[in-house]
Amino acid sequence: MFITFEGIEGCGKTTQAQKLKEYLESLGKKVLLTREPGGSNLGITLRKILLSMESQDITKETELFLYLADRSQHVHQIIKPALEEGSIVISDRYTDSTVVYQGYGRGIDPNILHLLNELATNKLNPDLTILLDLPVEIGLKRALARNLEDKISREEGRFEAESLEFHTKIREGYLTWAALHKERIIVINGNNEPEIVFKDILEAIKNRITFNN
Amino acid sequence: MFITFEGIEGCGKTTQAQKLKEYLESLGKKVLLTREPGGSNLGITLRKILLSMESQDITKETELFLYLADRSQHVHQIIKPALEEGSIVISDRYTDSTVVYQGYGRGIDPNILHLLNELATNKLNPDLTILLDLPVEIGLKRALARNLEDKISREEGRFEAESLEFHTKIREGYLTWAALHKERIIVINGNNEPEIVFKDILEAIKNRITFNN
Repeated sequence: MFITFEGIEGCGKTTQAQKLKEYLESLGKKVLLTREPGGSNLGITLRKILLSMESQDITKETELFLYLADRSQHVHQIIKPALEEGSIVISDRYTDSTVVYQGYGRGIDPNILHLLNELATNKLNPDLTILLDLPVEIGLKRALARNLEDKISREEGRFEAESLEFHTKIREGYLTWAALHKERIIVINGNNEPEIVFKDILEAIKNRITFNN
Repeated sequence: MFITFEGIEGCGKTTQAQKLKEYLESLGKKVLLTREPGGSNLGITLRKILLSMESQDITKETELFLYLADRSQHVHQIIKPALEEGSIVISDRYTDSTVVYQGYGRGIDPNILHLLNELATNKLNPDLTILLDLPVEIGLKRALARNLEDKISREEGRFEAESLEFHTKIREGYLTWAALHKERIIVINGNNEPEIVFKDILEAIKNRITFNN
């Protein structure tokens, strides 16, 4: 069982992924919560490069290739071994982020992105993806507030520094992509209190998956 | 004018590229000598990752994507601007290294590699490529001797630590690839004194290119 969380900056992915992990563990499941970029040892170095404000001069192709390098290492070193030993894996971002940010956001051909994701993951797709949707202004306000409070988040501010127009493209890209992949991607309203969002997630998940095996 | 040097470890690329730079400068040309990986600021970090003995656990796809990230940044930040201001650019390794090492060496589909090189370089191809060919055993002996002498080279020993079989695949891959691209790639015997190799390079280049413009 491989579940991913997706959405714009400040949509609540990290909070909800953590809540889901705790819930599943309370049912006695073994759960690995991980993230992209930065899920492997190499990924920690790549995450610093990708999210740092100092990387504003990297090209869109360089950005793409660094995300793919992070993903390939993450899949082979972390995700696949955990799935093989029977854990539920929850990842905060995965392949859809590449399609949406580098495709809808930066304008790279989605067909190429699909091919590259397949190459990076050896075609390992999530069983279920939860897209937390909310207005861009609200997500960014949340993300910027978090960055003010937290030194590590502040150093990871490259995407928050993008224009409102860019983030709007990302939100719309996610919604379009979700509509094209209804069998896998569930859209949840992220513009609610965290407890309500989590209740909505559980309800949606329960309709799709049984956790009894 | 964009010239690249290719070949197995210890073939003499770095020495000959430097000699060519000095020769062209002596003719009054403006020359940029650069290399992959590591030609850009970001590339210096990526080079450390790619060549470090500590990176022996990276997947072949991760390796590929890191080289492509390095290349994209190198092309857009260093090579293209230099060519546009009229310099001759000489690069120690470029796109052919990816085809040969990740394709012939690691078994990734050459068609995908070609597509990825195009994406990384925005289709910037070298005007001329010099492939220095020599027996694998001699190249490796040279490379290992260099690594014993030089602390930086020693830390960059990941490829020298590959098997003789791998290096043989690389040599043969280069020769096959050169035969398929005779219009661009010149094969020079690298198993000679550096002065003789350089004389052979100059002779071959003079037959192909006039430096009078």
